Amino acid sequence: MNGLILFGHGARDPRWAEPMLRLRERITARAPKTPVELAFLEIMEPDLGAAAANLVARGCTSVTIVPVFLGQGPHVREDLGALVERLRAEHPALDVRCVPPVGEDDGVVDALASCALAALPADR
Amino acid sequence: MNGLILFGHGARDPRWAEPMLRLRERITARAPKTPVELAFLEIMEPDLGAAAANLVARGCTSVTIVPVFLGQGPHVREDLGALVERLRAEHPALDVRCVPPVGEDDGVVDALASCALAALPADR
Repeated sequence: MNGLILFGHGARDPRWAEPMLRLRERITARAPKTPVELAFLEIMEPDLGAAAANLVARGCTSVTIVPVFLGQGPHVREDLGALVERLRAEHPALDVRCVPPVGEDDGVVDALASCALAALPADR
Repeated sequence: MNGLILFGHGARDPRWAEPMLRLRERITARAPKTPVELAFLEIMEPDLGAAAANLVARGCTSVTIVPVFLGQGPHVREDLGALVERLRAEHPALDVRCVPPVGEDDGVVDALASCALAALPADR
């Protein structure tokens, strides 16, 4: 079974995670059989290791990590890269995949553009 | 004329801004007459004040600020709130609007869900 990890930055304010929770709900509504965990780089819990351990406990033999970040900053390239290496060392039998950050996805850029244009006053 | 400001966090790595630049291109392709500026909270330039001044210089009488953030963290609620107040004080004739962060937009959440589900291996 393949699990998904939505990997975000984390913040002190619990409201920050609400869009991540909504995203998980949306994914679960569309793919009810796919286990989805959130994971956070800092401040919030669980971290990547704990999220992956949850998925393994739920029977996953592969996990796909989706960085919920705009771009390839140091959090994605360096911090997440190191965390993924550690995860592979800790779970040698687990197939760990990591995709580019969501902000590089063409459909996401299109939705962001629609959102921005819809924000303009009607008389633009 | 109404201008758009795409307000992002900023990062040390110039590659971080690439999705913001692609977003601006996408918006300009769809609304060629709408002036669009990027603005950054920290590290990168221009800041919000300089971006707004550019739009005023280009003839805008209103600006709409779109926070390119996932959620309502302190960067959006506190930092951006204070910057918007300062902007209104500096440009009393300018109509300054600010919308919720893009991560709260339903279409964006949907596109993020599609992106995450497409990342799963084909045999999911």
